[in-house]
Amino acid sequence: MIERLAVIGVGLIGGSLARALRANDAVGEVIGCGRSIEHLERAQALGVIDAYCQDPGKAVANADMVFIAVPLGAIAGVFARIQGQLAEQAVITDGGSVKGSVIADAVQVFGEIPSWFVPGHPIAGTERSGVEASFPELYQNRRVILTPLAETDPQAIERVRAMWERVGSEVTEMSVAHHDEVLAATSHLPHMLAFGLVDALTRLGSNDEIFRYAAGGFRDFSRIASSSPEMWRDICLANSEALTAMLTRFGSEMTELSDAIRRKDGEALLRIFGRARAARERYVDGIDEGVS
Amino acid sequence: MIERLAVIGVGLIGGSLARALRANDAVGEVIGCGRSIEHLERAQALGVIDAYCQDPGKAVANADMVFIAVPLGAIAGVFARIQGQLAEQAVITDGGSVKGSVIADAVQVFGEIPSWFVPGHPIAGTERSGVEASFPELYQNRRVILTPLAETDPQAIERVRAMWERVGSEVTEMSVAHHDEVLAATSHLPHMLAFGLVDALTRLGSNDEIFRYAAGGFRDFSRIASSSPEMWRDICLANSEALTAMLTRFGSEMTELSDAIRRKDGEALLRIFGRARAARERYVDGIDEGVS
Ligand SMILES: NC(=O)c1ccc[n+]([C@@H]2O[C@H](COP(=O)([O-])OP(=O)(O)OC[C@H]3O[C@@H](n4cnc5c(N)ncnc54)[C@H](OP(=O)(O)O)[C@@H]3O)[C@@H](O)[C@H]2O)c1
Ligand SMILES: NC(=O)c1ccc[n+]([C@@H]2O[C@H](COP(=O)([O-])OP(=O)(O)OC[C@H]3O[C@@H](n4cnc5c(N)ncnc54)[C@H](OP(=O)(O)O)[C@@H]3O)[C@@H](O)[C@H]2O)c1
Repeated sequence: MIERLAVIGVGLIGGSLARALRANDAVGEVIGCGRSIEHLERAQALGVIDAYCQDPGKAVANADMVFIAVPLGAIAGVFARIQGQLAEQAVITDGGSVKGSVIADAVQVFGEIPSWFVPGHPIAGTERSGVEASFPELYQNRRVILTPLAETDPQAIERVRAMWERVGSEVTEMSVAHHDEVLAATSHLPHMLAFGLVDALTRLGSNDEIFRYAAGGFRDFSRIASSSPEMWRDICLANSEALTAMLTRFGSEMTELSDAIRRKDGEALLRIFGRARAARERYVDGIDEGVS
Repeated sequence: MIERLAVIGVGLIGGSLARALRANDAVGEVIGCGRSIEHLERAQALGVIDAYCQDPGKAVANADMVFIAVPLGAIAGVFARIQGQLAEQAVITDGGSVKGSVIADAVQVFGEIPSWFVPGHPIAGTERSGVEASFPELYQNRRVILTPLAETDPQAIERVRAMWERVGSEVTEMSVAHHDEVLAATSHLPHMLAFGLVDALTRLGSNDEIFRYAAGGFRDFSRIASSSPEMWRDICLANSEALTAMLTRFGSEMTELSDAIRRKDGEALLRIFGRARAARERYVDGIDEGVS
């Protein structure tokens, strides 16, 4: 049971955790924190938070659990504001989509890896943003990855794990570098393809027609491309290295595929498509469990 | 009203048209034709066809409408078998995903553009194949593109148009080359990205884990990659030129995006992602209407 939860960034991810903990009677009071008074008032009116303030330092006062769910580019600033303001027993965790950058921010602000900070990432989300898009079931049957370090207090990990399990998630741990590579492959790369495809088609001209005849494949891709540009800019900047490596691999794959199409090599095409379909079918269970 | 419909290739596309025409009381008798007796018997047991034979030449006897829905690589063979076997008033149309290759096949077999042949393509489908996957609502509120030529009999076009309208489709006409370019952009390219992504991830090794943490974006892509490898090989071979051009354009787009990520150019990323999202939102109505 969390007595006082501070949610810094009451959007899709932060708002959904607050709603889910409330729905499961797992939290006493929820304090929200953000930049826009209007959004915070809306969050309060929706019953997602009990009270709010705009200063992260004030928001965390007396909180036993702090969840940071702002865009990755704003996390260092939040760390700087909460430094020295935390309660003795407070545990801090976050929902940032990249973990290496968040840990680098922590080291830069606190001068060391804080024992009470548990880096985390719920593998859950939608292409929508803001508190209006939040809902209490978002984390049900989803995975949450924690990337604790040698310095991290095992009790802090335990409390964060318990929180996520309370809202229906399966919690696993992995190294920071491994997390950032796996996510570059399974989430960041697909989003780049979706943004790149929609942008490439937009630049073709005669847009209306292209989009009017947009076929099923395209529709699925383009939904992804409606995700927040700011969030994805931050993810790209924060995971630049692993994502660049993945884009290079994908580039080689597409060169191979394009060459087979150009030289009309039906055997090679059948091999690539068949391998992709077989992999898809082998892992379909895993795939259907995960979201964004 | 069609008195006798011959469906050559009773799979997802052919089976669904037969079912839809029956559901709308728009057809008398339906004759199915395919390679596998087992599949044809299944189609008959499901009530999709009334009778069947394995020879396209026999199947079209006395048919007033013939719908060819075999993979693109098999269309020339079907043309060769039906030559000289058609009834006087018969109109032939097809559902092939590429139109240039089908027309080249017709010219090669018949020595000219036959006036009674109306090239067509329903912009509808799923990633599943075979008669078991067919259903009568597939074409409802979908677009069908016809690409008639100067030689095509206007009355033949009218009969094909009426057939598709009867099952709830909106029929439009465009030139062969334009069809093949628009489809390369909106359907063939997205499928290549999906196949390429899943195959690239498969080759990364440690598959289980990659697929276990597969996020939302990836799940949508990978569903597309479970489409029939044979059908997509044929589409690539048939539309090699337009698809190669689209792959090249997409490659330039991805090079630009990758470069921005490598040099951590947040402004450039925001520009690309913002443009994609804006296009997506502008055309979202068109997108939600079309499928595969
Ligand atoms: N969306 C997903 O699918 C997903 C999935 C997993 C993890 N994540 C991660 O979760 C985090 C939040 O994403 P989200 O989708 O919840 O975004 P969101 O819906 O846009 O919410 C972000 C919240 O952060 C606040 N905020 C923005 N900049 C701030 C700043 N400089 N200082 C303080 N507050 C600020 C915003 O408040 P105002 O409106 O008042 O500015 C907003 O309420 C990101 O780090 C993202 O990488 C997202
Ligand atoms: N799937 C889509 O999303 C989609 C959308 C629009 C257009 N199309 C086009 O529609 C056509 C059919 O696609 P589909 O998805 O319906 O495929 P499908 O479900 O696999 O059906 C193809 C049918 O063609 C028969 N066939 C295969 N090779 C043949 C041959 N050499 N001679 C005679 N019959 C043969 C098969 O019969 P047996 O089982 O007996 O071999 C099968 O019933 C293709 O040209 C495709 O490009 C597909």
